[in-house]
Amino acid sequence: MDLHGAFHVYDTTLRDGAQQEGLNLSVADKLAIARQLDGLGVGFIEGGWPGANPKDTEFFRRAAQELDLRHARLTAFGSTRRAGVRAADDPQVAALRDSGAPVVTLVAKSHDRHVELALRTTLEENLAMVRDTVGHLRAEGQQVFLDAEHFFDGYRANRDYALEVLRTAHEAGAEVVALCDTNGGMLPGWISDVVHDVIETAGVRVGIHAHNDSGCAVANSLAAIDAGATHVQGCINGYGERTGNADLVTVVANLELKLDRAVLPAGLLQESTRIAHAVAEVTNVPPASRQPYVGASAFAHKAGLHASAIKVDPDLYQHTQPERVGNDMRLLVSDMAGRASIELKGRELGFDLGSDKELLARVTDRVKALEATGFTFEAADASFELLLEEMVSGQRPSYFEVESWRVITETLDRRSAGEEAVSEATVKIVAQGQRHVVTGEGNGPVNALDQALRTAIGQAFPAVVKFELIDYKVRILDQGHGTDAITRVLIETTDGESSWVTVGVGHNVIEASWGALVDALTFGLRRQGA
Amino acid sequence: MDLHGAFHVYDTTLRDGAQQEGLNLSVADKLAIARQLDGLGVGFIEGGWPGANPKDTEFFRRAAQELDLRHARLTAFGSTRRAGVRAADDPQVAALRDSGAPVVTLVAKSHDRHVELALRTTLEENLAMVRDTVGHLRAEGQQVFLDAEHFFDGYRANRDYALEVLRTAHEAGAEVVALCDTNGGMLPGWISDVVHDVIETAGVRVGIHAHNDSGCAVANSLAAIDAGATHVQGCINGYGERTGNADLVTVVANLELKLDRAVLPAGLLQESTRIAHAVAEVTNVPPASRQPYVGASAFAHKAGLHASAIKVDPDLYQHTQPERVGNDMRLLVSDMAGRASIELKGRELGFDLGSDKELLARVTDRVKALEATGFTFEAADASFELLLEEMVSGQRPSYFEVESWRVITETLDRRSAGEEAVSEATVKIVAQGQRHVVTGEGNGPVNALDQALRTAIGQAFPAVVKFELIDYKVRILDQGHGTDAITRVLIETTDGESSWVTVGVGHNVIEASWGALVDALTFGLRRQGA
Repeated sequence: MDLHGAFHVYDTTLRDGAQQEGLNLSVADKLAIARQLDGLGVGFIEGGWPGANPKDTEFFRRAAQELDLRHARLTAFGSTRRAGVRAADDPQVAALRDSGAPVVTLVAKSHDRHVELALRTTLEENLAMVRDTVGHLRAEGQQVFLDAEHFFDGYRANRDYALEVLRTAHEAGAEVVALCDTNGGMLPGWISDVVHDVIETAGVRVGIHAHNDSGCAVANSLAAIDAGATHVQGCINGYGERTGNADLVTVVANLELKLDRAVLPAGLLQESTRIAHAVAEVTNVPPASRQPYVGASAFAHKAGLHASAIKVDPDLYQHTQPERVGNDMRLLVSDMAGRASIELKGRELGFDLGSDKELLARVTDRVKALEATGFTFEAADASFELLLEEMVSGQRPSYFEVESWRVITETLDRRSAGEEAVSEATVKIVAQGQRHVVTGEGNGPVNALDQALRTAIGQAFPAVVKFELIDYKVRILDQGHGTDAITRVLIETTDGESSWVTVGVGHNVIEASWGALVDALTFGLRRQGA
Repeated sequence: MDLHGAFHVYDTTLRDGAQQEGLNLSVADKLAIARQLDGLGVGFIEGGWPGANPKDTEFFRRAAQELDLRHARLTAFGSTRRAGVRAADDPQVAALRDSGAPVVTLVAKSHDRHVELALRTTLEENLAMVRDTVGHLRAEGQQVFLDAEHFFDGYRANRDYALEVLRTAHEAGAEVVALCDTNGGMLPGWISDVVHDVIETAGVRVGIHAHNDSGCAVANSLAAIDAGATHVQGCINGYGERTGNADLVTVVANLELKLDRAVLPAGLLQESTRIAHAVAEVTNVPPASRQPYVGASAFAHKAGLHASAIKVDPDLYQHTQPERVGNDMRLLVSDMAGRASIELKGRELGFDLGSDKELLARVTDRVKALEATGFTFEAADASFELLLEEMVSGQRPSYFEVESWRVITETLDRRSAGEEAVSEATVKIVAQGQRHVVTGEGNGPVNALDQALRTAIGQAFPAVVKFELIDYKVRILDQGHGTDAITRVLIETTDGESSWVTVGVGHNVIEASWGALVDALTFGLRRQGA
């Protein structure tokens, strides 16, 4: 079979993915995500349920006008007709018909008990609902898929009826019947057995729709495909209700890179890291660093022992080449770091340390000494780059001199109730020969220091106005010493285009934060070429 | 086979899990996690690599004295001897022998090219290293397992040699050879084929060690077990390098609940949600809400359509009963706790909430409201107990009234070099009718507040002199808002005999810390019967 032409990669991020707790997509969000999905080359984008809510109706209206899809066909999701009415007379079916989407995916019950309990109708009427609705939409010129809800549970409970639902849809003109593990509890061996039986017995084209409740959504999808399914549904970044749907990028990367099945248009898989992160920006769900293939940590190695071997043959230490999904190998500079990994890390940042053995030894010693006091450069590339710059040039990049700083946090008298604590910081610095004394306020001490420092420096370097602190992490080292311990702070800063991470360490959490703040502004100014 | 007796559930959180980017565990962290793992009933806890770094050596020293394991055997991880020396003369092997751990897991190369490239020795010498090291430790009375590193890649490259490594270990006395998918790129069908072949050809007892790089770590583990493996390695919460190791709780829950294999002591699986979250508090890695079985969203339904059907038969809408893993079904968004778990937790703390439904409902509502603002009571039992006491008696235990507090952190003029930042706090409180105004100093703002508050209260309640703050954790909620986010602080306090954890929340990290400090002293005084 020509898989490139025939195999369906079907994305349901905009419908089933949006069921995720805490995920709320506006119409503009959905349009933006649809464009990204099309850029990945998926074959179908399920946009929502027109008629079920005004947002989805509006999405299909705007999609018809604004979306210029190169690869994907827009798909409307909806239900079979209500019991006891004609499909042509059911307003919910009309909304699907009139959505402008060339494809409709109809959800139907295939588990006998759900027909009785949730639909409150007879098994016969449910079959008629499938037959009529599929037939009506086919007659109106739409391509129709069927989502057989709770299929695997239904198959266990009443195999004959579950298969009958599939056959009915197929005979009425549904091109694919997607078997849904709606509750997500299946395991790969079970999926495989059922898909084999369905294809052999019912003679239909099978799709798979898996959820991750048993942690096997990806493997379940692959098991179904191995058993003959030629249509796979999933969501980018594994979004979805409860534990999420099958992560479509992981499924597709496994198919392309491990099973040699070209299911996306050529060259597009390498867009997947960029696209997965771009979609995460729209959904505002922080990307999981441990996500397979596209996660920030997916190809990150705590080098140490193996660094020299990695230099000789990186493929011995990675399951695939990160470039194939648009990701990068990263070497983490950790307390196990040796010279080889620091040399490699330096090269990544544009410093050639390999040609100067003495310098490399000094950098390695310095990193080890700093790590012994609590620093980590694993995440803090920007602080590491400043350190390298200092060791190579003999001077740390510096745009301002700190004279002193102070921050006060206090509550007003508690008897005047309802007051929150407030923080106020004063910093005294010298920049470009000018002394600046600035006070800033904030809802926390670091917030106040950040305000004051950026205002002070901004008088000499207006670029810092654009800088924004977007993440702040505190880690207490040396547990067992309470507040008398070493504190490590990681700060992520953005200039609106890219972001960088800096680190600060100290007995005092405020001092550690200050160190990371100073590095953050210094790195940002250096990058701006200040 | 009697699986309950024979099957090995092997946790490597403290060794391989600790390889995760950004995860740094102190010795006290590792001891705390080991206690939790033992509470889950795993059979083996791999504690680290004694001799490889001072922290792991210290862990094994303290574990021998402080850990009183009921279910698990402590396991030391290390390498086969160096090339060209006797195992008995290798200091790395000596550290394993002298670790006090009854079990040693030796990592060995089983991929020919890794032997040549990373070990830089011959294939024959590698076999001798396996034979000698296993034999030596067995002769010294330790139980020995072998981790066959890069096994699946090695099997593809040179099947005969990979099998020879296993046979050699087995003949020298290794009880289990764990096949490691070190690079994590395998798929279930491949794992199944190789495990079948290994068991048939080499006649060894097989374990499985899977990583999640293809998103199939859980399915790969199950595939190996289905093919005959009787030892499974993984990490709680799926921690680990790159994309993580197999999530041990998901694997075990699938085995127990879906495959009817009792691999944990009876009754302990239902502790898994609590334990997974308690470990996350220690690692300070935010728990993934979409985590199978134990995630906050794992049994959360956007009810809507199905609400009435769910009420009739919830099992139609969930793949297993959440109580079996100690989790709860949730029908509404944004509430973290259900009544059942609050009733259970109350019982644990000596409050019978089950007999008063109205009280239980009020406590549940209050917990939900507090959790919505950022509180968590999963780890902070002491704050939860104060809350219960307040709800049951109508009054929060209180030994002092806070009038106001203030803390100043500052650096002296940097031109007088070498000075660290200092913090100074002033608190004004009323205890037993007496007003106390006390100033304390510290090397951080919370340390200064703690000093001042304890001095002030100590004048009325001398018992607090014994109290010591032994751990302090900060988590920024609402990632993506920088320093302008909600902060949650957890504080652990000891009176020299036992310790307790309290929680505070606020926009201002100092205010959140203050809330946790006040709870900590209040709880301690209550326990002393003040």
